Amino acid sequence: MTLAELSAVTGVPIPTIEKYLRHGLLPPGEPDCGAAPARYGAAHVDRLRLVRAMLEVGGLSIDEAHAVLRHLDAGDRSMHTILGMVTGGCVPPAADGGDQPWQDADQEVARLVTGRHWRVGPGSPAWRLLAQTIVVCRWLGQDDLLTRLADYAHTAEQMAATDLTLVAARAERDSVVEGALVWTVLGEMLIAAIRRMALEDASARLFAADQEG
Amino acid sequence: MTLAELSAVTGVPIPTIEKYLRHGLLPPGEPDCGAAPARYGAAHVDRLRLVRAMLEVGGLSIDEAHAVLRHLDAGDRSMHTILGMVTGGCVPPAADGGDQPWQDADQEVARLVTGRHWRVGPGSPAWRLLAQTIVVCRWLGQDDLLTRLADYAHTAEQMAATDLTLVAARAERDSVVEGALVWTVLGEMLIAAIRRMALEDASARLFAADQEG
Repeated sequence: MTLAELSAVTGVPIPTIEKYLRHGLLPPGEPDCGAAPARYGAAHVDRLRLVRAMLEVGGLSIDEAHAVLRHLDAGDRSMHTILGMVTGGCVPPAADGGDQPWQDADQEVARLVTGRHWRVGPGSPAWRLLAQTIVVCRWLGQDDLLTRLADYAHTAEQMAATDLTLVAARAERDSVVEGALVWTVLGEMLIAAIRRMALEDASARLFAADQEG
Repeated sequence: MTLAELSAVTGVPIPTIEKYLRHGLLPPGEPDCGAAPARYGAAHVDRLRLVRAMLEVGGLSIDEAHAVLRHLDAGDRSMHTILGMVTGGCVPPAADGGDQPWQDADQEVARLVTGRHWRVGPGSPAWRLLAQTIVVCRWLGQDDLLTRLADYAHTAEQMAATDLTLVAARAERDSVVEGALVWTVLGEMLIAAIRRMALEDASARLFAADQEG
């Protein structure tokens, strides 16, 4: 495919692809010299998406991204080690997209809420946060993560009911409000930290044995 | 108790308590005039902790905190409505504390990791994040949230294993790294958003019926 087609397939703007090419984060197309326009293949699509994820979602520097690609291509580090390099400094991505992705995401959240009989309205900040995350998932081409939504929702429902019942059992109304506020925030941090540890353990089990250099 | 004792019991510095008193976020002690030193009771402890949580963890303004306390005291809003007022704009709290709380938290994380046979070391960013959250929990006097740690860990282990197995099944190594990175971040956002929706639903079920004005 041409550079324009590569851009269309991945959704990455042409100037951004050209920047990645200049920095050597993406191998040149074939032929890489002469008058014929360069052609790009499936490997370019995969590499381009990975580079975008590292720079725009993972917050990695160009040098850090280079190091990851070098180890990935050389096969001199296990996948577990490589995952440790990319997931250390993750920052939440910014949302992007026109009107249609937002409407689709909004309807997806509405179906989830209706299906679970949750008493949550579209004005809720959490509703908008979920819709935003769905838009980002699709924008990054990670639609398969959304197949996990029902499982996450089922688990969250059980955990949240236990959390709030424990807080509601407090004697004083001041303490109930304080607990709900603090547990919402700190519970989120606890869960994020524990999930990252569990992912690190899962990565060690799945990947640590392969090709460590 | 005296102002100094109130400060010692809650861990809130005296100048901070005096600021809350000046802003009317804490009722004056008894007697509230005359030469005798003011005395504070259990209600002051509860109110002081709630005010600290709203301002320092919830990121509420003094006016917003005033409104919450007014509704709480008047009983003219349901607890569900009040929880909606305080948990809308939560931001992660800053850590605080000397050496001992950190050592205790570090040992607690170590026990968790050993108990679950997780292949995660103390150099991991997630380990430090979990230890930090434990320190903040204790600093805010919310030790009871930590009774939930084992349940969170068990659930996180199951969810993370499924997440990573799905990502690992991808054909290309580039896609595996991209997926692990993006799923770590977006999965965290998805879970946070869904948990907040589930908490909002639980709050509606537990509290929406009481005393709505």
